[in-house]
Amino acid sequence: MIIIGEKINGTIPSVGKAIAAKDADFIRNLAKVQAEAGANFIDVCASVEDSLELETLKWLIDLVQEVTDTPIAIDSPNVRIFAEAIKYCNKPGLINSVSMEGDKVEVVFPLIADTKWECAALLCDDTGIPQNAEKSLEVFTSIMKKAKEYNIDPSRLHIDPLVQMLCTSEVGINNVVEVIKEIKAQYPTIHITGGASNISYNLPARKLVNQAFIVLAMNAGMDSAIIDPLNRDMMGMIYATEALLGEDEYCMEYIGAYREDKFGVKK
Amino acid sequence: MIIIGEKINGTIPSVGKAIAAKDADFIRNLAKVQAEAGANFIDVCASVEDSLELETLKWLIDLVQEVTDTPIAIDSPNVRIFAEAIKYCNKPGLINSVSMEGDKVEVVFPLIADTKWECAALLCDDTGIPQNAEKSLEVFTSIMKKAKEYNIDPSRLHIDPLVQMLCTSEVGINNVVEVIKEIKAQYPTIHITGGASNISYNLPARKLVNQAFIVLAMNAGMDSAIIDPLNRDMMGMIYATEALLGEDEYCMEYIGAYREDKFGVKK
Repeated sequence: MIIIGEKINGTIPSVGKAIAAKDADFIRNLAKVQAEAGANFIDVCASVEDSLELETLKWLIDLVQEVTDTPIAIDSPNVRIFAEAIKYCNKPGLINSVSMEGDKVEVVFPLIADTKWECAALLCDDTGIPQNAEKSLEVFTSIMKKAKEYNIDPSRLHIDPLVQMLCTSEVGINNVVEVIKEIKAQYPTIHITGGASNISYNLPARKLVNQAFIVLAMNAGMDSAIIDPLNRDMMGMIYATEALLGEDEYCMEYIGAYREDKFGVKK
Repeated sequence: MIIIGEKINGTIPSVGKAIAAKDADFIRNLAKVQAEAGANFIDVCASVEDSLELETLKWLIDLVQEVTDTPIAIDSPNVRIFAEAIKYCNKPGLINSVSMEGDKVEVVFPLIADTKWECAALLCDDTGIPQNAEKSLEVFTSIMKKAKEYNIDPSRLHIDPLVQMLCTSEVGINNVVEVIKEIKAQYPTIHITGGASNISYNLPARKLVNQAFIVLAMNAGMDSAIIDPLNRDMMGMIYATEALLGEDEYCMEYIGAYREDKFGVKK
């Protein structure tokens, strides 16, 4: 499982405050603890006014790189910022994200065409978030056509099928499971990613729904997730699911991660 | 999900002590709290020496029936005891369990042939627990042949595929998932049951493995489980999984169970 550590995000109130106050230690620490907890990418999202976004991203990226070699996921709704922001990164990371909205793909795919950068791609377009599996797969096909055009290998893409909240669903996650399975059947090396908390919006005891969702999504083929790697129960659930799915012989990874104190009662 | 409440079991030290001390209130309370927590059957297992088993089961069954109408699951390794024990029950319950070992099926199936009793059936025989899916399905076929002979409808059977511990597995639970799916394909109305804790034997942070296992087993078709209904996280995970699998429109059951304080932070 590829863990994209979500904690350095200005929309989180404590992080927004730290960004406003230029609290470098706070940001460095968030990077360090996420890397230690097993993040494969450290996501940085400034969430400040447009005129400040690029310099804020640079500040965040520099701080992260002071304390860890873990690659950066640059997170912005403004695809035009990626061209500058990738220059601040010491090594290829992940662009978070494109979609078929506007010209996002046309801006980002040429930028990463001849690089090792990976890219998250959301299954939505100018008409919004698809309401059925068929439409999601149409958007996916459009994205892959563009990826081929720019010679971006499927293994560099993290497709986010955009899970909608469970409380308004009549069919649970059946649609998203169908989408994930079809995508993995078409492109076995592609990554499927997503957040783990939208699903439980408006429900009580959300962490149980989030955890059960991750287990079922992994079973369908999800192999990447934008989560808080300090959520020990979620991390343990992910390791347990990998073992249950036959991806961890004799539970060696599970036991190793436990010994490294990544989940279970804190040592 | 059909919950078979496992707590009145003499192999649990506190329960063994209560049975030895004839502590009726202790047993009554275990029955009451499990029924309130949502158990569909209350399992009673004496785990005493042979000469005392029948009278102990009668004592346990009487106590359970004093405080709840929830049907009993009579649990014994000695199939010859069921013929007497079912007479103590006010209503049909569940025989736990038969298998293709010895003459178990031959003793129990005639006994429940013309009743509404249900029966748990383990997929093992005189050669032990099968080591692959093919052999498990052979045992299953033998059981169903006998069930047909005694006119026991598949909907009265709870098939336990006997999950083995994950720590010695090279393929996770792939075999058991295959077995569950094949059985449900052959008999859509049959129940698939099992315990939720063998799977995590010898592993740390067992509850995470148990929870992830239940989610995946339910996804494969498990619809019955021998568990502790007072395990609030497990119960919440089960309700969440039913909603995610599209079996709980708009999460009405999930929200209702939460309001009834069956999971989440205790009210």
